Amino acid sequence: MTFEANPQGKQVCVVVGVGPGNGAALARRYAREGYAVALLARSTETTEPLAVELGDARAYACDVTDAASVERAFEAIGRELGPAHALVYNAGSGTWGTVEEIAPALLEGAFRVNTLGLLLTAQKVIPQMKAQGGGSIVVIGSTASRRGVARTAAFAPAKAAQKSLAESMARHLWPQRIHVALIIVDGVVDLPRSRAFMKDKPDDFFISPDAVAETAFRLSTQPPSAWSFEVEARPFGETW
Amino acid sequence: MTFEANPQGKQVCVVVGVGPGNGAALARRYAREGYAVALLARSTETTEPLAVELGDARAYACDVTDAASVERAFEAIGRELGPAHALVYNAGSGTWGTVEEIAPALLEGAFRVNTLGLLLTAQKVIPQMKAQGGGSIVVIGSTASRRGVARTAAFAPAKAAQKSLAESMARHLWPQRIHVALIIVDGVVDLPRSRAFMKDKPDDFFISPDAVAETAFRLSTQPPSAWSFEVEARPFGETW
Amino acid sequence: MTFEANPQGKQVCVVVGVGPGNGAALARRYAREGYAVALLARSTETTEPLAVELGDARAYACDVTDAASVERAFEAIGRELGPAHALVYNAGSGTWGTVEEIAPALLEGAFRVNTLGLLLTAQKVIPQMKAQGGGSIVVIGSTASRRGVARTAAFAPAKAAQKSLAESMARHLWPQRIHVALIIVDGVVDLPRSRAFMKDKPDDFFISPDAVAETAFRLSTQPPSAWSFEVEARPFGETW
Amino acid sequence: MTFEANPQGKQVCVVVGVGPGNGAALARRYAREGYAVALLARSTETTEPLAVELGDARAYACDVTDAASVERAFEAIGRELGPAHALVYNAGSGTWGTVEEIAPALLEGAFRVNTLGLLLTAQKVIPQMKAQGGGSIVVIGSTASRRGVARTAAFAPAKAAQKSLAESMARHLWPQRIHVALIIVDGVVDLPRSRAFMKDKPDDFFISPDAVAETAFRLSTQPPSAWSFEVEARPFGETW
Repeated sequence: MTFEANPQGKQVCVVVGVGPGNGAALARRYAREGYAVALLARSTETTEPLAVELGDARAYACDVTDAASVERAFEAIGRELGPAHALVYNAGSGTWGTVEEIAPALLEGAFRVNTLGLLLTAQKVIPQMKAQGGGSIVVIGSTASRRGVARTAAFAPAKAAQKSLAESMARHLWPQRIHVALIIVDGVVDLPRSRAFMKDKPDDFFISPDAVAETAFRLSTQPPSAWSFEVEARPFGETW
Repeated sequence: MTFEANPQGKQVCVVVGVGPGNGAALARRYAREGYAVALLARSTETTEPLAVELGDARAYACDVTDAASVERAFEAIGRELGPAHALVYNAGSGTWGTVEEIAPALLEGAFRVNTLGLLLTAQKVIPQMKAQGGGSIVVIGSTASRRGVARTAAFAPAKAAQKSLAESMARHLWPQRIHVALIIVDGVVDLPRSRAFMKDKPDDFFISPDAVAETAFRLSTQPPSAWSFEVEARPFGETW
Repeated sequence: MTFEANPQGKQVCVVVGVGPGNGAALARRYAREGYAVALLARSTETTEPLAVELGDARAYACDVTDAASVERAFEAIGRELGPAHALVYNAGSGTWGTVEEIAPALLEGAFRVNTLGLLLTAQKVIPQMKAQGGGSIVVIGSTASRRGVARTAAFAPAKAAQKSLAESMARHLWPQRIHVALIIVDGVVDLPRSRAFMKDKPDDFFISPDAVAETAFRLSTQPPSAWSFEVEARPFGETW
Repeated sequence: MTFEANPQGKQVCVVVGVGPGNGAALARRYAREGYAVALLARSTETTEPLAVELGDARAYACDVTDAASVERAFEAIGRELGPAHALVYNAGSGTWGTVEEIAPALLEGAFRVNTLGLLLTAQKVIPQMKAQGGGSIVVIGSTASRRGVARTAAFAPAKAAQKSLAESMARHLWPQRIHVALIIVDGVVDLPRSRAFMKDKPDDFFISPDAVAETAFRLSTQPPSAWSFEVEARPFGETW
């Protein structure tokens, strides 16, 4: 069986949530290792050029909180690239506010993007991975998943739910050779908009998206004799 | 100012999620200590008789996942009983299933009942408590909030999100003298339907709803010099 | 069987580590509830007058890090007051320093006082409690047991070991009706020496020893249907 | 400056606790990557032949619980191989028993091997690493560090203390470019003596020492923009 956007039949990696930071770095990392990559974002405006740059890659518009949109995207991925061998879930959102400040819709929206979307996309790839005898699902989480502080009343519950779902998935799927893992991003990712807010910080204050991508790729290729579930990505100078 | 259903001007406790188990025991415990009690459940079928039994109490129909319904219930509580001094959040749900088995709507539903409802009801009582110089919000959580296992793919994320929200609330509200606390129920609550499923278990296998209510009431009255956030309610014979 | 220092045959509580703070408050709390109390400290200089004040109480010199000293103290307690029904372990120490600053002897000393002493004293009372059909062991822990920070290189490992031992004990002893619990003291206890260092802090910055004692006593008398293992004692205004 | 046992001036890795399992695999992994390796064990009986096999390596007899022995070993390492750039702490012990069964000396012995030895050896290499502008310290921990169960009354407290010390070290040393990390070994390592006890288990039940060594080496070479502290090494089929 051949796939039009993956003529060499490379293993397929689906990166969900491709913006200019971790998402693009993840896509580049897996592509460099020989994966055909599906790039999912709400619009394909920035992912189309990235797909062209990467070669065996294609951009898909997908709203991860909408089951029908997820359905359409994965149907197209399966047809054009083939079944997924790796899923990297990088969709997320980061509203700040205390319990007194946040609108309930913000809490619900954060949950839908971080957790519901993980379930919807995971349910698409799990049967494909089982059919292939294994695979990996790497979730880009956050230190907010470990604790809620005053101003993360909307964000922390969403990340905690995401972590809990990932853990439930790991306990169920590891014995079936699907490696579910969670990266705890603990620090500020190096993005144009982070730099704009934090002009006084030195370069090494920031987490490099390439380093996050490296961590994710290592998790996707760990030997099954010693898998990790939860791994921090934290700059050496961060206070924790 | 006097209230028709609270003529003596007792302190008011709102119990959210009153069924035959913890909810009824909580209502009785706070009533016994001199609180006027608002009983919230989806229907008032079983809470009306309980309100009559308790005296200074009233039953309210409320769907905690619906902002308008919460709005109506708390408007009525404020008018009939007065501003809340204690909120006990006992609404919850417990679907079982792995990531491969659960419908996405189950995950979302569990989140809405356990977490969104906590936000909606807390946002109603926080201003009232601040106006009174303090108060307490006790959340009836679960050991599932601490970890996701294979068959809690829908339930654990919801409870983890609930715990995270409660923690965020605690960090924000404690300094304002509002004691937010979480009870980790770790075991099977003694209910007719639990007994029906587990006929071979001795009495002391089960968690008594009265003991959960006792724990909640103690949290509501802890001295502010030594507050607890997270407290287990676990039978002595439970494996953990 | 009668005991010279406990003529009415009251239940016996052994408080290990009685100084002017939590220890004295613990002793007073249990005495007030009708316990005969054994007061253990390295010297009996301050505990003798406390024993006289409390009535059915007696002071014992004990170095908890020395098995022979523990042996002598518990032999005397058993003879003079009777078998223990409650043990409150309040011995502890709090050296500050980073890994580069601490002498290895400080790490070892902290371990011996916080953890080895808990084992030595627990091993004395467990058979007594089993013979009575139950009992309680409450350990006064610290937030340092949950995490090591830069300047707790000696203290945090000792408290982490203490918590781990308490947890192991709980899992083994709960089914035998011995309630092992841990209080996480998270803040500065109100002591003359704390006040001397923190003269600008308001009264409600401090944890009242009476509030810690109240928490301990509640744990000793929780119904076995809903026991707690780990309970925080944290002032409402503390940052955590 | 040249070193007799490291004539090419390779970076030096000190592996503490070299037996037939993780220790030997660790030594091989770092040697393969171009490190000169110091092999520490109580006796040099099995490490001498390994040193010969590895080439730029040397065996040292060292009792990690004895400050003078540690002093002698590191003096010799510094003289013969040069200052350490990596330390892998694999010394450990695994007595089983409940609080009622263990002799206090077992608790203390476990603490000394797992925690005191880590402090003693870390204090030797930290100044060397600072002088070189950085380094890495990888501790081989255990899932027992996360919780104490009934039969780990001696082992779990020692591993919890070790983890706490490692965390304190990490928070202090990361900003100085020394990467302290902890591997949570969660499963049975593939050793002749494990196999003898578990003859019915398939090969993939066991953790391969090579996989642990791979994880350790990856930690030693992580980019400082995204360091991890705590990483599990758990077989895909393990129940957790």
